[in-house]
Amino acid sequence: MSITLEALVRRPTIKDVAERAQVSLKTVSRVINDEPGVQARTRERVQQAIAELGYQPDPSARSLRSAQPYALGLVYDNPNPYYVIAVQAGVLSVCRETGYGLQIHPCDSSSPTLAAELIDLVQHSRLAGLVLAPPMSERNELVTELVAHGIRLVRIVSSAADPQDGSACVYVDDRDAAYEITEHLIQLGHTRIGFLWGGKSHGSSWERYKGYEDALHEYGIRLDPALVVEGDYSFDDGFRGARRLLALTDRPTAIFGSNDEIAAGVLAAAKSSGMNVPYDLSIAGFEDSPFSKQSWPALTTAKQATQEIAQHAARRLLQEIREQAPRKPLPNEGFSPELVVRGSTAPPRPKA
Amino acid sequence: MSITLEALVRRPTIKDVAERAQVSLKTVSRVINDEPGVQARTRERVQQAIAELGYQPDPSARSLRSAQPYALGLVYDNPNPYYVIAVQAGVLSVCRETGYGLQIHPCDSSSPTLAAELIDLVQHSRLAGLVLAPPMSERNELVTELVAHGIRLVRIVSSAADPQDGSACVYVDDRDAAYEITEHLIQLGHTRIGFLWGGKSHGSSWERYKGYEDALHEYGIRLDPALVVEGDYSFDDGFRGARRLLALTDRPTAIFGSNDEIAAGVLAAAKSSGMNVPYDLSIAGFEDSPFSKQSWPALTTAKQATQEIAQHAARRLLQEIREQAPRKPLPNEGFSPELVVRGSTAPPRPKA
Repeated sequence: MSITLEALVRRPTIKDVAERAQVSLKTVSRVINDEPGVQARTRERVQQAIAELGYQPDPSARSLRSAQPYALGLVYDNPNPYYVIAVQAGVLSVCRETGYGLQIHPCDSSSPTLAAELIDLVQHSRLAGLVLAPPMSERNELVTELVAHGIRLVRIVSSAADPQDGSACVYVDDRDAAYEITEHLIQLGHTRIGFLWGGKSHGSSWERYKGYEDALHEYGIRLDPALVVEGDYSFDDGFRGARRLLALTDRPTAIFGSNDEIAAGVLAAAKSSGMNVPYDLSIAGFEDSPFSKQSWPALTTAKQATQEIAQHAARRLLQEIREQAPRKPLPNEGFSPELVVRGSTAPPRPKA
Repeated sequence: MSITLEALVRRPTIKDVAERAQVSLKTVSRVINDEPGVQARTRERVQQAIAELGYQPDPSARSLRSAQPYALGLVYDNPNPYYVIAVQAGVLSVCRETGYGLQIHPCDSSSPTLAAELIDLVQHSRLAGLVLAPPMSERNELVTELVAHGIRLVRIVSSAADPQDGSACVYVDDRDAAYEITEHLIQLGHTRIGFLWGGKSHGSSWERYKGYEDALHEYGIRLDPALVVEGDYSFDDGFRGARRLLALTDRPTAIFGSNDEIAAGVLAAAKSSGMNVPYDLSIAGFEDSPFSKQSWPALTTAKQATQEIAQHAARRLLQEIREQAPRKPLPNEGFSPELVVRGSTAPPRPKA
């Protein structure tokens, strides 16, 4: 967070202006907002101080007074209500601190006219900038086009490290967390571990698969393609994928679903087959959603601090909005989800 | 929906203007939006037609062109992500049809400064109007204060009939649906039916309780206060309430949770006690949330068309926004949730 402090130090504040012009903060505020009640001479002195210091009013502070409204836009395409609500809550908390409104824009990430739709959204609703959640955030041509239209944005992406491509982002190391989940299952004694993909348009799906692959490789376990099923980040695909894996002659003793919705589907499939979870089948998810705590048994998962990630993304976006001049890119921040072990994973039954 | 058609018929449209002025729609649109490319004489003719017809441009259509942005605000305080996402989706669908943006405003319904907060929100973000979800929609003094400040709003309320208090609302007959759920349990043979309350700040909680009470009364079953537990619309309160009821010597054979989150808590409590649902315990919820379809067994519930209700609320709000002159109140619309029977309810085990 040191960058925020540095940014504040680097930029002159309304207080600096007040001190230099030897007036109250209220007077500076009145001058900035063209409000009455300031004598002409005082007004001039304040304007001079503003010019000398190169002070630029914070759009959020200004918007509280002036006629010009400011709102951020949140763009997402995700079937999971828990994820969406957490992202909204994170961005909203920053909006409230800074006086911005929040417009939400769920969309179809596969739409060929998405760039035009988002450009229209920003212009029509006069949004100060956009937070792009996955998978839109991972469509490079889309991001390039938005930036070319002068749209300020921040991306939430799945990546082990800062992509360092000059873009503002918050990156989440899904691969490492998926490695830990798979390792946990291996250490319990599982060698037949099924994997259910999330949607391939999401970078996180690929990263989670790579984490699974890496862990198997590291522990010298052959990756059996029959145990890997493609699908979307949904309950239904979890249910279908699990039914398919459980019908195999040499079925898996554990299934790793790429998110908690998928894992919820696996749990329902196991129960509908009369299986006792975790003794007949271990199940792990990813996300630490409320469902993962409420299901019976509760799910082993990776705790992804979605709300906090969204909060950091919104703060990063505000840095972009405030930073007007050409500049060095500000550093991005990364998150690593953590393994949370609950009742849905256990050692496999000894072979009969 | 006949009122919408009537409203359209009553109000002159851009087409009427074009016909009267004998120009194209595009020309009328150019005049309205002060765009170039219209001869002075034509412009005058269009302006005259507008004046004669008393035509008022639709703010949504105008906003697509003009500098003035329009957005609606959605105000809610609900711990249930499925409900919130469905309400957002309903309001958003109407926003998209009409060119409005949507700002979301989750809030603390018990805050003493809520009225000031919402007035500030509307003014600061220049919102055209507010959709108030429960329980804010049911706080009369709050609604009165907002209306007194000239804020256009629509309320979603729990009521068996149009409250006919001059306010714009969509009303949902929770009492009737709760009656049907209780009746379903009685007809299966249950007489010991537990009831878990939702939060008492919600009108829907009271209506659902009354439906339960009415059905027991109608079927001559004594209401045992030991079987009624207060709580909030949350999983945790469902879990706690069910644990309490299941510990009774003469425990209930069925539990009606006031929403699906509560019922999910009951299901977890029953499973954690080693019970077989529905044979050891029948469980019913309310809402038809995705969880109710995904749980094992799936939940008997009342299908509340939340998205459609929110859609109607947004349409009703647009009527309010467009209707500028003093007028007779427009009729409100009502919804009745429907009983959906799934695997979580069955006849009680015969007494040993």
